[in-house]
Amino acid sequence: MPLTRIAMKRGKSADYQRKIMDQVYQALCETFDVPEDDRFMTISEHGDATFDFGKNYLDIDRSDDLLLIQLTVSNTRNLEQKQALFARIVKRLTETPGLRPEDIFINLVEVPKENWSFGHGLAQYA
Amino acid sequence: MPLTRIAMKRGKSADYQRKIMDQVYQALCETFDVPEDDRFMTISEHGDATFDFGKNYLDIDRSDDLLLIQLTVSNTRNLEQKQALFARIVKRLTETPGLRPEDIFINLVEVPKENWSFGHGLAQYA
Amino acid sequence: MPLTRIAMKRGKSADYQRKIMDQVYQALCETFDVPEDDRFMTISEHGDATFDFGKNYLDIDRSDDLLLIQLTVSNTRNLEQKQALFARIVKRLTETPGLRPEDIFINLVEVPKENWSFGHGLAQYA
Repeated sequence: MPLTRIAMKRGKSADYQRKIMDQVYQALCETFDVPEDDRFMTISEHGDATFDFGKNYLDIDRSDDLLLIQLTVSNTRNLEQKQALFARIVKRLTETPGLRPEDIFINLVEVPKENWSFGHGLAQYA
Repeated sequence: MPLTRIAMKRGKSADYQRKIMDQVYQALCETFDVPEDDRFMTISEHGDATFDFGKNYLDIDRSDDLLLIQLTVSNTRNLEQKQALFARIVKRLTETPGLRPEDIFINLVEVPKENWSFGHGLAQYA
Repeated sequence: MPLTRIAMKRGKSADYQRKIMDQVYQALCETFDVPEDDRFMTISEHGDATFDFGKNYLDIDRSDDLLLIQLTVSNTRNLEQKQALFARIVKRLTETPGLRPEDIFINLVEVPKENWSFGHGLAQYA
């Protein structure tokens, strides 16, 4: 169910990108109980003029490796689960492929369960 | 009012892409009463390393032709209308340009009517 | 906190794009009290077949310079503030880089404050 959109600067390898998607997906499974194979993700790559970020907002020192991760999910998780997700994504991505914890920005957009169709034109969660 | 974002694998023709946007727009008109010319849509194209999906989630057999369709709409539709939209998008896209019903993933994000400005800096629906 | 996604037709200069991001950010500061350096923005560029819009919806005459601006923000603003934001974005962009007021489409997606992580895997606003 999560629909994950990740924006980053251009120039990373396919292997690096696949690792990022794998780790974010594993973090979703571990903290949001996302089922096996429930995985829908895109990465958009940007040049200097189309990717812009505050280099020190909240005294966090960001680099050009910053990921902007926006996850659309069902509105069924509480604050604790969201905090667990944020922490787990960062733990995993700092291990593989080895990002800095400062370089991981995450935003959740929540929708009712009836707002998903996974194929065949049905609202499978309604 | 709907803002439609479609993600797909790179490699399809402009004609194929235009047909997809036309059919999704027609389905919105027919089931969500979207007015004539109320049409704002983008497609993003992805390579193998930036487009990732569960090939069998919910026992639906997806191929590389998968579309990830995210529609931001006003929060004025009920479940029946959402189900009608999902079904209509799939019916239309399977006819033209001829997608498999398994390859159509849809997600709705809902916002209040006051959250739109269609030009001139006004909130035309507020 | 705002996560800003702007879609436009391909072919504009980096200078033009940077000006757009600067002006939208300034408008957010002035009307939504966005703090200094709280700035996370991307632009996606599209060809003819991947960018589609109603040329006259609501009798607004749009050109290929149209911007589709989608801002994800915390759900703490009232209608007046939203109207002020829309007006300010348009005022600024018509001055610099000199867009037509008809060519600025804006949509807000609102999320609870706990839905953001700005780094280190923490929910800094929770």
